[in-house]
Amino acid sequence: MRYIYSVDVINSGCLSVLPSFGFLFDIDGVLVRGKTPIPAARTAFQKLVDSQGQFLVPVVFVTNAGNCLRQKKADQLSHLLGVPISQDQVMMSHSPLRMFKHYHEKCVLVSGQGPLLDIAQDLGFCQPITIDTLREKRPLLDAVDHDRRPNVLSPSAVELPKIEAVVLFGEPVRWETSLQLIIDVLLTSGYPGNPYEQESYPHIPVLACNMDLMWVAEAQSPRFGHGTFMVCLENIYKKITGKELKYEALMGKPSRLTYQYAEHLIRAQALQRSWEQPIQTLYAVGDNVMTDVYGANLYDRYLRASCGAGCVPRRRPPGCRCRSVLVCTGVYSPRAQPAPGPRGRPAFHGHRDFGFDPALVEPDHIVPDVDAAVDLVFRLENFAPH
Amino acid sequence: MRYIYSVDVINSGCLSVLPSFGFLFDIDGVLVRGKTPIPAARTAFQKLVDSQGQFLVPVVFVTNAGNCLRQKKADQLSHLLGVPISQDQVMMSHSPLRMFKHYHEKCVLVSGQGPLLDIAQDLGFCQPITIDTLREKRPLLDAVDHDRRPNVLSPSAVELPKIEAVVLFGEPVRWETSLQLIIDVLLTSGYPGNPYEQESYPHIPVLACNMDLMWVAEAQSPRFGHGTFMVCLENIYKKITGKELKYEALMGKPSRLTYQYAEHLIRAQALQRSWEQPIQTLYAVGDNVMTDVYGANLYDRYLRASCGAGCVPRRRPPGCRCRSVLVCTGVYSPRAQPAPGPRGRPAFHGHRDFGFDPALVEPDHIVPDVDAAVDLVFRLENFAPH
Repeated sequence: MRYIYSVDVINSGCLSVLPSFGFLFDIDGVLVRGKTPIPAARTAFQKLVDSQGQFLVPVVFVTNAGNCLRQKKADQLSHLLGVPISQDQVMMSHSPLRMFKHYHEKCVLVSGQGPLLDIAQDLGFCQPITIDTLREKRPLLDAVDHDRRPNVLSPSAVELPKIEAVVLFGEPVRWETSLQLIIDVLLTSGYPGNPYEQESYPHIPVLACNMDLMWVAEAQSPRFGHGTFMVCLENIYKKITGKELKYEALMGKPSRLTYQYAEHLIRAQALQRSWEQPIQTLYAVGDNVMTDVYGANLYDRYLRASCGAGCVPRRRPPGCRCRSVLVCTGVYSPRAQPAPGPRGRPAFHGHRDFGFDPALVEPDHIVPDVDAAVDLVFRLENFAPH
Repeated sequence: MRYIYSVDVINSGCLSVLPSFGFLFDIDGVLVRGKTPIPAARTAFQKLVDSQGQFLVPVVFVTNAGNCLRQKKADQLSHLLGVPISQDQVMMSHSPLRMFKHYHEKCVLVSGQGPLLDIAQDLGFCQPITIDTLREKRPLLDAVDHDRRPNVLSPSAVELPKIEAVVLFGEPVRWETSLQLIIDVLLTSGYPGNPYEQESYPHIPVLACNMDLMWVAEAQSPRFGHGTFMVCLENIYKKITGKELKYEALMGKPSRLTYQYAEHLIRAQALQRSWEQPIQTLYAVGDNVMTDVYGANLYDRYLRASCGAGCVPRRRPPGCRCRSVLVCTGVYSPRAQPAPGPRGRPAFHGHRDFGFDPALVEPDHIVPDVDAAVDLVFRLENFAPH
């Protein structure tokens, strides 16, 4: 009875008590700035749960961060928001790597911070090797830091398997070391320490998670993200070889893969809760025009196209949409617009390989913060769970 | 009598005992690889000094290194070569900064490694501030390394003078920190910590020493040099702002400024030794086509042009030349040529701002090592001092 009643209510413009929508929340710049919680986040999440702390709406956290296991991120969020978050609600930028099974058996070089080996193994990789380990095995390669150069001038050769792919999880520390060793791996077809080869192009596969050029912490201007590291890598490769660095895969927002997986998680939550009303609309709440807005609008375009193309997944009802909601607590500020580029347009902060489509950077809604985003969506959906 | 005799000898194709030429020796890849001496260097220098260790020919060491005082470099070379080298024979990439007196009174941000404050002050700078000091004063800015992020979320504001220029001495360590803080200084017109400004272009002056993309150490392939760091800085600046990073000055080989100063030192040595025969030819011995060969050939072109233009310095005789001699103990290898670029040409490893002129990358001579270079020059000059 409740289900039928709620549909009637929607159709008549009255109030609904069951959700026909879900939230995709970005974390940095929406819920936190660096380590500092954004006050609106706790207020917003009080509206999203019932008195037992159970969610009233499907919610997935979609972060481009990739430096920890999703359980740890879920624990952080539970503490931050004051409501229990499960790891099944958390999607990291590296999550789609689970599907790249043909690399799982191979020796891959992993770059980033945090418990990289744990993350890689959790995703299915059997032979990950970190930059630090490679540096220990090939000590002559890392020569930038005068104080860390090896004292042994001819270290004995240590056997290493051929490195068959490079996985960029996130921005590392000591960029000069990671940049040098990744370039060495690419220019030696996976045998760093050997002389550079002319035949190393096309280079071995590079898979990258998280293309964010910048993110917002406590400082008054955005800070370098993994996308900035990738700008360095791409341009060093191009300067040395004269050729383009190519990515086998680019994961994280704004890539479609990420939104597909997030939609899958949203529908799985609705199913688990036995909410029978179909989820029609995904609201993607983020602070970054080039990742959150661009990605949501790109996915919306895909939803509309795939709807007409007859390739709708089993659980997706026709007419589904993805709506972009931009908040002003992070990278985006309505006051400080980016300086216009040479042709008077803002500089393009998206990744090199994502062609800039001006139609995709316009958010469906702009609100001050995440609390206002939740209020807006509840109003739009005539949603009144309590 | 000896002097006249020697001139007669030259004219008749016989042997000369007084030099009418001088040497400009590159260091890395010519005399050492990393910390390892190249054996030919000691042999060569035995031929360049008399039994008292006095040089028989004017010799200047022209290095693009910039991470120490020239006295320290002179001491290292004395030890390495087994002959006494004075600091007046050593030219570092930063030496021309002595002439940029209008910056000496201003607060300048300095980037690099080694005793940066000592070097800056020795050159005449009164208010240098290092990246490390700026990082301490503005702890929220450096956010890449998760383990080094500040625990204090709202550090008290520390007064800092306006930074009026950025001086890049050489490649730093922890590139992410230097890149982030330099970008912050440029996008805030010298007030890092403030929000980025739209009005920060043209940005405050950037002066850079040493543009070497790569250099040769013990590893089997060349290692990143300061030029690689500059590639990162230029491309991050362009990605964020959509505009070109501009250099107020670029020092070190292949810049003309560097060769002019080296020539001045060569003539000063000849004068001090009362060698009355004019120095006609400079032999620049190096391992790097894009710095040593390109720079020497560019200077040769300048010498020929200025000779005809009537602007010859007081002590320079007419018809002076600068000859490039390429050795195979460093970056250049006759076997492993760089991979051809997209149009079949090798990738351009020189700096962005030095237009590539194919005529300037052809060395006058290619020899196996520095000892062969000395033998060749002695033969070419009919020089037989002993």
